[in-house]
Amino acid sequence: MNAEEADPGTVRPGGRTARVRAAVLTAAGDALAQQGFAHLDLADIARRAEVGKTTVYRRWGTVTSLMADLLMDMAEQSLPRTDTGSLLGDLKANARLVQRTLADPRQGALFKAVIAAATCDSRTADALHRFYDIRIAEWAPCVQQAIERGEAPEGTDTHEVIRAVSAPLYYRLLTSAVPLDEAVADRAAEAAAAAARAGAYKR
Amino acid sequence: MNAEEADPGTVRPGGRTARVRAAVLTAAGDALAQQGFAHLDLADIARRAEVGKTTVYRRWGTVTSLMADLLMDMAEQSLPRTDTGSLLGDLKANARLVQRTLADPRQGALFKAVIAAATCDSRTADALHRFYDIRIAEWAPCVQQAIERGEAPEGTDTHEVIRAVSAPLYYRLLTSAVPLDEAVADRAAEAAAAAARAGAYKR
Repeated sequence: MNAEEADPGTVRPGGRTARVRAAVLTAAGDALAQQGFAHLDLADIARRAEVGKTTVYRRWGTVTSLMADLLMDMAEQSLPRTDTGSLLGDLKANARLVQRTLADPRQGALFKAVIAAATCDSRTADALHRFYDIRIAEWAPCVQQAIERGEAPEGTDTHEVIRAVSAPLYYRLLTSAVPLDEAVADRAAEAAAAAARAGAYKR
Repeated sequence: MNAEEADPGTVRPGGRTARVRAAVLTAAGDALAQQGFAHLDLADIARRAEVGKTTVYRRWGTVTSLMADLLMDMAEQSLPRTDTGSLLGDLKANARLVQRTLADPRQGALFKAVIAAATCDSRTADALHRFYDIRIAEWAPCVQQAIERGEAPEGTDTHEVIRAVSAPLYYRLLTSAVPLDEAVADRAAEAAAAAARAGAYKR
């Protein structure tokens, strides 16, 4: 009995569909992390997920659609922001979350693979941009709170401050062999907080 | 008569070799910018360069070797740093150089392609890391001069300040659809200068 033929009586409504999606997206993430995006193949992913090939073709159709769904799932599964009460504390929490994700072997390889895939395919690029828009919007309110506490000037571009925290971590991931450690994360947060206080992100 | 059979009497010593290399690297850059790295093929590049296929195979052997040589050439061809006399002026000059490069359709696509290629191949990654090490080292002395003028504290990591200027530009190139304009470049320079002044890049 494969996942498509699970006994309906044992499964909540929608449960089988959700389980199949989870298995396929995990398999797609594994394949991307291990092989990169260039050799991604729906039949291989179906085998890895132990899901019928026709189910995968019917539901996603193309590698591009599957990548878009994977990125949506990654956004949905991402942790919510933490609220420490200070701009530097909040930005450090964000920086360490990004750093832990990118330093994790599977997750780091997966992010490299989806960024590489987005350079070759505009629909994957759209999905990647949406992923970052969602993640930046999740954390931007901590900068608004900092403005209200007087920690950053009125008119500061809240989204740009959050992007400034991530940027050095991604730049290091993609352009150097130096490992991403907590000190790198803390420095990214300190630099963004200092530049925000100095008004560098005012619109 | 193809480039390999050019009359030796009409060419300076070494001229033919240099001309062949220039033609092949330009063709490789064009192919990368137009098609991305996934379909790069030495025979196709030889055709584009109007150079004998055997010359290309003998000299470079693999796509990976050709990518490494292209990245070395990109480092050699890069503009030297400018010296404006102030940290913010120098960082703005650097930021605008990076921004103009990444905003140029051919160059922007080429950088995306080599970054994507580096995620799939460790020798290309090594060559890419060397490219950035060379470019960062070219500009780092402007931060040393700023320290000597009292514009940034002693112990500031000069290379890290230069990386901080590039990071938001690359992050935007790879994770968003927002165009890279001069305002983005100036903001990156202003943020890095403000954070450096505040001591965020002290070792």
